[in-house]
Amino acid sequence: MSVITSKQCACKWVLQHQHKFKQVVRSCSLRVKQKLGYDQEEKTNEQNEYDSEYTFRYADLTTKLCDPSQLRAKPDVSELKFGQIFTDHMLKVFYHKQLRGWQKPSIIPFENISLHPAAKVLHYSIELFEGMKAYRGVDGRIRLFRPDLNMQRMNVSALSVGLPTFDTHELTKCISRLIQIDQEWVPHSESSSLYIRPCIIGIDGTLGVVQSDSALLYTILCPVGGYFSSSSTSDVGVSLLADPAYIRAWPGGLGDRKTGSNYGPTIRVQKTAALKGLHQVLWLYGPDNQVTEMGTMNCFMFYVEENGQKVLVTPPLNGLILPGVTRHSVIELCEKWNEFRVEQRTITMDEIIKLSQSGRLLEIFGSGTAASISPVSMIEFLGQNIHIPTVEHAQPLYKRIRDRLAAIQYGHCEHPWAVPIE
Amino acid sequence: MSVITSKQCACKWVLQHQHKFKQVVRSCSLRVKQKLGYDQEEKTNEQNEYDSEYTFRYADLTTKLCDPSQLRAKPDVSELKFGQIFTDHMLKVFYHKQLRGWQKPSIIPFENISLHPAAKVLHYSIELFEGMKAYRGVDGRIRLFRPDLNMQRMNVSALSVGLPTFDTHELTKCISRLIQIDQEWVPHSESSSLYIRPCIIGIDGTLGVVQSDSALLYTILCPVGGYFSSSSTSDVGVSLLADPAYIRAWPGGLGDRKTGSNYGPTIRVQKTAALKGLHQVLWLYGPDNQVTEMGTMNCFMFYVEENGQKVLVTPPLNGLILPGVTRHSVIELCEKWNEFRVEQRTITMDEIIKLSQSGRLLEIFGSGTAASISPVSMIEFLGQNIHIPTVEHAQPLYKRIRDRLAAIQYGHCEHPWAVPIE
Repeated sequence: MSVITSKQCACKWVLQHQHKFKQVVRSCSLRVKQKLGYDQEEKTNEQNEYDSEYTFRYADLTTKLCDPSQLRAKPDVSELKFGQIFTDHMLKVFYHKQLRGWQKPSIIPFENISLHPAAKVLHYSIELFEGMKAYRGVDGRIRLFRPDLNMQRMNVSALSVGLPTFDTHELTKCISRLIQIDQEWVPHSESSSLYIRPCIIGIDGTLGVVQSDSALLYTILCPVGGYFSSSSTSDVGVSLLADPAYIRAWPGGLGDRKTGSNYGPTIRVQKTAALKGLHQVLWLYGPDNQVTEMGTMNCFMFYVEENGQKVLVTPPLNGLILPGVTRHSVIELCEKWNEFRVEQRTITMDEIIKLSQSGRLLEIFGSGTAASISPVSMIEFLGQNIHIPTVEHAQPLYKRIRDRLAAIQYGHCEHPWAVPIE
Repeated sequence: MSVITSKQCACKWVLQHQHKFKQVVRSCSLRVKQKLGYDQEEKTNEQNEYDSEYTFRYADLTTKLCDPSQLRAKPDVSELKFGQIFTDHMLKVFYHKQLRGWQKPSIIPFENISLHPAAKVLHYSIELFEGMKAYRGVDGRIRLFRPDLNMQRMNVSALSVGLPTFDTHELTKCISRLIQIDQEWVPHSESSSLYIRPCIIGIDGTLGVVQSDSALLYTILCPVGGYFSSSSTSDVGVSLLADPAYIRAWPGGLGDRKTGSNYGPTIRVQKTAALKGLHQVLWLYGPDNQVTEMGTMNCFMFYVEENGQKVLVTPPLNGLILPGVTRHSVIELCEKWNEFRVEQRTITMDEIIKLSQSGRLLEIFGSGTAASISPVSMIEFLGQNIHIPTVEHAQPLYKRIRDRLAAIQYGHCEHPWAVPIE
């Protein structure tokens, strides 16, 4: 059991991955670079500032707006589902190795993407994505939540599938401009937000499992309500299928990257859960049935030790788990509160069952950008229904965390995690 | 050590997967159905014959040919690389759940594919493919090699990622028609062939990791020479990087399906191999470093036991290995020759090293549709270069197998595996 302390945790997920990759270091923030001891590379980076192999630049952004007649009506906020409706514009940046790398970014009217039928993304899953949100604050300002972490993770994913990396600040600026243009699409509601989907796909029109020398980075936006179709789950709790027969990720694989390859294989398992009337899959690993992820979320458990001490625990970043931005924020929040112990260590199904039986299991919840904080009410495991009383407490932790995150995101308080789009 | 005999092996890979899936059974050949005891379903299938939820039909195929001015010049056969040049036409079949499933198949001029930017294939790797070849025989006739096995495997892959299945005979007929139309693209050469790439992609334009209710099945064709850029490897042998740090597939995953998710994550490892000057990756699994696959090929080892008995061994279909059509054919051929023992069992790096040191390791070779039979000359494993004398024998087994397969494929002899396109 390895318990990770507050200090070790800070920036851990960025550091854990990025120290390996020289190329990513070029696109890290100065602060991360200093932590990593890469100060001396700064000069080289300056020299590379105009090098399109290294990055595209916001300064080169071109914009072609929709004709006013093309602008679509905004949906009714109360009817918003996840990922169904998109805004009027999109951001596109091509990369062509033979044309010295990144081309000029452009914002254009939302349109279909035209791909060669042999495009590598369509055959070999040379693709990655990110998920972020923009929130309209009580003061009317639009804020992003910790976009730097998503951008850095995007570069780490890119390296995994041989796609090009970029300067994270440049993409943040381009995306912020896109949101400004489509700002009327950011819902005027605290139960909704604008979901931001940046991705990179390999577009070489050649067969053969090799690196794609051409790529398309693009970003689309969609106003969203809750992630789950039944909005009630945010208070009633989700039910989970935990079946050791299905493994999402494994050591030596890419389970900790936001690459398409981690998602397609989960569809059949998600279907199995749905056929049983369950909401999501609780992913297990190993002979001791370690809990890894929950659907597309990270997983937290809140319980009481025999001595009465309360503990919040989440599985460690051991390569089997996506380093979630919300996960990271939950850990930081709770450590700052300093009211209970926060641990990153392995959770097994045995532990969940024992805690449940002894009445010491308080809450299990998932964390993610799309679904924020989702309480769990039940786990089906090997024919056994394990009741989880997450939503039955008067003042549950999951709700406190969700409210605190929302307060930051919707500008009820000033906080460095919420970055206004000027 | 589980040794599988000839009879058990027959049709094993089809049976092993398909008994689980009622939906696939509908699209199996009658012979497979009888083996599986699904005869009673036959009536239902007949009733479903015109049901577009079940399959599209060759009888509905529409064809729109290129204008003669659009036809492109055929490349010089001696300069053919793998997967670079495509023929004049392609096959497309759409599936829309809301429009009662499969639409009418069509052959059209080769063109780009237009996708919604949220298409599930671009984000969640909801995609699968197959690889087959058409060969121009010495008698001028064009033959496919065991297309039934590829088509059945395609349906098994489809189920894994929630994509629709189809009647395998109908697709074979549609593809055969496409090849007829582009028949002048089938090289007049026994060192070349026409590579056939059928695939299905999920095209729902919505975010969210759920099944795609719309799909596009399409097939493109390209005349190909050898798979490796250096043509010399077919006689000199390929070099392999075997690094236990990288795992391609794992129990509980989809390592035995031809889905895109198995390929994207291999790019970085392939790059690592290339940086070391090595051709391919030898994929290992487990603490005992079991050999699973070789690049995108199945793996065979030929050696002599201490008692002088020769043995051909290949890893078993345990879920970590693609059930290759060439693999299956090599096993059947060698069992029929009955000159040495053929085994499907685990091979470890320890065994390879020991056999190599004792001089009893004769050959290691890969098998696959793209690269046929590829001899191995060297394996780099934990800093050690293991010499493999595959290409140093006067009459190596790999060459005998390759020549026998080529004789079947290019019509030097009549054989049920080679199916002429009439």
